[in-house]
Amino acid sequence: MNLLYAFDLLGTAAFAASGAWAGIRRQMDLLGVLVLGVVTAIGGGTLRDILLGDTPPFCLQNDTYLYLSIAVAVVVFVFHHRFEQVVYPLLYLDAIGLGTFVVIGTQKAINFGASFIVAVAMGVMTATAGGVIRDMLSSRVPLILRREIYASPCIAGGALLYACHMLEVNFAISALAAATLVVVVRILAIRNNWELPRAKN
Amino acid sequence: MNLLYAFDLLGTAAFAASGAWAGIRRQMDLLGVLVLGVVTAIGGGTLRDILLGDTPPFCLQNDTYLYLSIAVAVVVFVFHHRFEQVVYPLLYLDAIGLGTFVVIGTQKAINFGASFIVAVAMGVMTATAGGVIRDMLSSRVPLILRREIYASPCIAGGALLYACHMLEVNFAISALAAATLVVVVRILAIRNNWELPRAKN
Amino acid sequence: MNLLYAFDLLGTAAFAASGAWAGIRRQMDLLGVLVLGVVTAIGGGTLRDILLGDTPPFCLQNDTYLYLSIAVAVVVFVFHHRFEQVVYPLLYLDAIGLGTFVVIGTQKAINFGASFIVAVAMGVMTATAGGVIRDMLSSRVPLILRREIYASPCIAGGALLYACHMLEVNFAISALAAATLVVVVRILAIRNNWELPRAKN
Repeated sequence: MNLLYAFDLLGTAAFAASGAWAGIRRQMDLLGVLVLGVVTAIGGGTLRDILLGDTPPFCLQNDTYLYLSIAVAVVVFVFHHRFEQVVYPLLYLDAIGLGTFVVIGTQKAINFGASFIVAVAMGVMTATAGGVIRDMLSSRVPLILRREIYASPCIAGGALLYACHMLEVNFAISALAAATLVVVVRILAIRNNWELPRAKN
Repeated sequence: MNLLYAFDLLGTAAFAASGAWAGIRRQMDLLGVLVLGVVTAIGGGTLRDILLGDTPPFCLQNDTYLYLSIAVAVVVFVFHHRFEQVVYPLLYLDAIGLGTFVVIGTQKAINFGASFIVAVAMGVMTATAGGVIRDMLSSRVPLILRREIYASPCIAGGALLYACHMLEVNFAISALAAATLVVVVRILAIRNNWELPRAKN
Repeated sequence: MNLLYAFDLLGTAAFAASGAWAGIRRQMDLLGVLVLGVVTAIGGGTLRDILLGDTPPFCLQNDTYLYLSIAVAVVVFVFHHRFEQVVYPLLYLDAIGLGTFVVIGTQKAINFGASFIVAVAMGVMTATAGGVIRDMLSSRVPLILRREIYASPCIAGGALLYACHMLEVNFAISALAAATLVVVVRILAIRNNWELPRAKN
């Protein structure tokens, strides 16, 4: 399914840019920026493949992901003075990546015979674990654990895709529906500063 | 062995509660509390299974662990105002979980043909790696690396179980002995504030 | 190839000493010092083996690595008052370990049929991931992401080894050349305080 692959590469590039940008804000050198870009882009899918037992993971089987995320990180590094202007637009590409990665991760787990909870968890992990590793490498508490509607739309999208699979809906339709759900909720959350409830002291 | 499985679930619940509580203290939102609860409960066994090459790991093969730790984390989140009162009793459940996880992890490594040092390391990791990942996600130096008798009783328990295995002691007896050793030393350490030696400056 | 194995053990010992020393500087107890020593010494190769799907990883198949790094960490702990004097010489052993680990990791990936970018990435990871995990466990931004010529010579050495492999150069010669390249560049970087370019604000 070529459209899904195109979105996959788009999401990889957006995630690599967000990782590289995090490295620049934290004063890392060129290599640190590259590592953060690559890890953010491929970390989630790599962890998913390790857990599913599908090793070597996708990024070691198809070089495109590594080359693409390295290239994006280099571009971000070189043009970082002008990058501030594209940070907000980048959030939209990032949302598209989020939706695409949820669909790819959930569907792969379903293909491996995963149950509902496992399939959804693998979808969410595919979309979010790269950013978590990025924040751990930056010695920060991962942002998504603290105050963003980021993983929640992924849970909804993964659950929808699993439900469609059980109802034997055509994959193209259910993938589109699930990804759209993730993207729309995510963008609404950005625009409206939605947050999840938090424990009060 | 149903008794071991019952203790396994008890330990999973206790670890999930301690992880969720860490998330609440660190002002995470609902999702962060869930993630910390789940990761603390299943992280150690998952890492063990990845290292032993037994993928997908136990938690992806039996949904009980995921549902149980999510449920416990939600309960902790909802009732966190009253949770302070049960933190101390929880340390006892946590100690029981520690003993159980050491036995399960060490025995699994033995079944995979592991040597003494590997079997003990896998037992300790099963019991402690979830808490280490919890602390890394919270951007703290893991507590067990700094000042607690936490992993040490696990080493003793794992070594005892391995010795019993070499001496062909019945598994039920040696499992009980090893788990009891871990629990008793751990509880004595809590009550007496025992610490390991530290480098002096 | 026995010389390579001898250098491998030398590098393991040097990495274990650097990890244990990090634990002592961060006031960890004996167990924390052991864990940091072991993880620094074997973390990179373990992650490489997990990614290549070669589990259980090398350190669970040959006990020497675990016993050696535990022994070195204990020695560092016991003699830490005198350790300050050997920190600078240790950087040279560490550089030798770096060169050896790059050769071992890159070659192993080549044996598993890896492409250029994957082979180089596996070589660099073998040499550097242990130190990254050490820094993450210490709740610090990994040093190599911030300001050291540490991974860069590894990239050069891995690329050279891969090129020699494609040109069908004898392995002993190309391994020696690649390791020497890593060691020389690394030592020059230490002596001259070389740094990679960094983003400016």
